Amino acid sequence: MSLESVDSGSGMRKRRAAGVIGLGAMGMGVARSLLRAGFETHGYDLRREARDTLQAEGGIASATAAEVGAACNVVLVIVVNAAQADEVLFGPAGALSSMRDGSVVLLCSTVAPEFAEVLGSRLAEHRILMIDAPLSGGVAKSASGQLTVMAAGDPKAFEIADEALAAIATKVYRLGERPGAGSRVKMINQLLAGVHIAVAAEAVALGLKAGVDPATLYDVISNSAVSSWMFQNRVPHILAGDYQPLSAVSIFVKDLGIVLDAARKASFPLPLTAAAHQMFLMATAGGHGSEDDSAVIKIFPGIELPAKAI
Amino acid sequence: MSLESVDSGSGMRKRRAAGVIGLGAMGMGVARSLLRAGFETHGYDLRREARDTLQAEGGIASATAAEVGAACNVVLVIVVNAAQADEVLFGPAGALSSMRDGSVVLLCSTVAPEFAEVLGSRLAEHRILMIDAPLSGGVAKSASGQLTVMAAGDPKAFEIADEALAAIATKVYRLGERPGAGSRVKMINQLLAGVHIAVAAEAVALGLKAGVDPATLYDVISNSAVSSWMFQNRVPHILAGDYQPLSAVSIFVKDLGIVLDAARKASFPLPLTAAAHQMFLMATAGGHGSEDDSAVIKIFPGIELPAKAI
Repeated sequence: MSLESVDSGSGMRKRRAAGVIGLGAMGMGVARSLLRAGFETHGYDLRREARDTLQAEGGIASATAAEVGAACNVVLVIVVNAAQADEVLFGPAGALSSMRDGSVVLLCSTVAPEFAEVLGSRLAEHRILMIDAPLSGGVAKSASGQLTVMAAGDPKAFEIADEALAAIATKVYRLGERPGAGSRVKMINQLLAGVHIAVAAEAVALGLKAGVDPATLYDVISNSAVSSWMFQNRVPHILAGDYQPLSAVSIFVKDLGIVLDAARKASFPLPLTAAAHQMFLMATAGGHGSEDDSAVIKIFPGIELPAKAI
Repeated sequence: MSLESVDSGSGMRKRRAAGVIGLGAMGMGVARSLLRAGFETHGYDLRREARDTLQAEGGIASATAAEVGAACNVVLVIVVNAAQADEVLFGPAGALSSMRDGSVVLLCSTVAPEFAEVLGSRLAEHRILMIDAPLSGGVAKSASGQLTVMAAGDPKAFEIADEALAAIATKVYRLGERPGAGSRVKMINQLLAGVHIAVAAEAVALGLKAGVDPATLYDVISNSAVSSWMFQNRVPHILAGDYQPLSAVSIFVKDLGIVLDAARKASFPLPLTAAAHQMFLMATAGGHGSEDDSAVIKIFPGIELPAKAI
């Protein structure tokens, strides 16, 4: 899995190919990491400008998901949700129509664990291996090839996909041999991410209401036992008044929705997740769905948020 | 504020005296830190065994809070709540009856910011200086003299109390010159602490329900962007099945109650804090109030928690 073996051999043998379906912020970062590692990188996205960007950076833009499937034995699906994943794989001009037997699909989107399980079985029927491979780390780590992958799948699939995984991630957790195990951990990951962001906003909002200087509050909390990675990362957006989306409010409307749906099917209560979901819904209803997820603080009335420096 | 100056002079001049009222887990740790730093350490607690422990360790056990006040010009009040603080200061045989003009009271308990403000004014009427000085860091850091203090008070009070603060804390935030500013930050500190502990429990509970190995989950989450200090610190208690209280469930029933009361007075909504408070109340109602706060996970039915190793 080391990159050295990748680089040393690249001049002598056929270039390895990998495909990325879904060239959003995360997918484009993954494609760039693959290019940097020397992969012949194919990519497909509905949006023309995303395909043009990939082409301009040395990748090969495909007109359909099927073209990606025909060219690559490792295909990463990094689309927004389960419905899109289904469409780009099984739809007309989907990757399944052209993928060779024994190829590997990495399902990187955040989906219900049950969907990942079922998808693994459906792909197996088509003699395609699947790695349930949700990503964590965000857009910046996607671009730098430093993602974390919560992976589950057949060891044979990992043999084939190992070099591509090494190109995009610094940590690949092997969580089991059956798809679903990765998405279950990712679901819990998103639960914590969403609640930590929402409570960071709630804490800063109360501080503003109480007249605490928010920069001082950030300093005290960041250096204490009540800090979280998300608090340290997101509160500076609030302090700067900068809600340019790195990850949007709408992502947590979707992802906490997935968590709550899965838990409800099992009749399992999640009081904090439910409250945080309502907060992100309220922010979306207020017109902030496409802003940075820290904009969830805008649901709190009667406080004056720090303004953006001009 | 360095300890060197304290130690080097201790043989030559009158020993400095400091008093601790309330010798619970936090207060006893503070008293030990003062003893270690060479203070003549007076202490009072309702409970006889706490007084005996202090005496056995080289401190001076007082029969009343008034005795502590008579002996010390720096008195730390580390009791459970505002009512107790009022009693040990203003009640019969309270410290106020004997404290000299210009002495300093450090109010270290977690109380409503408004209470701290009013107490500062009342003490000023008696020519006593007050530092609003809630502590953070827990029992272990209390014992090792490594607390964080969120302090607010008159600079003259800090001059008098500086050496005592240096003996008990590695970080003393000066948050303003008027009592209340420390307790406001502490309130937000407790909001985050309570929600982070409750959501760590909720996340592990969902993992157990979904069949995720909890030790693996802990490993993945702890090394990720969705970790928190509390997640890393409390989840091992759950994994070990060890609910021996370091900090009890009941503390968060009280402290989140203070936060919610203060916010409600200002008509300010705190959806996550309210949900977490309900979780700690539910744990208390279920008979777990005096267990470690990680026992809030016991409110989730239908999961099998890791058992304690025998």
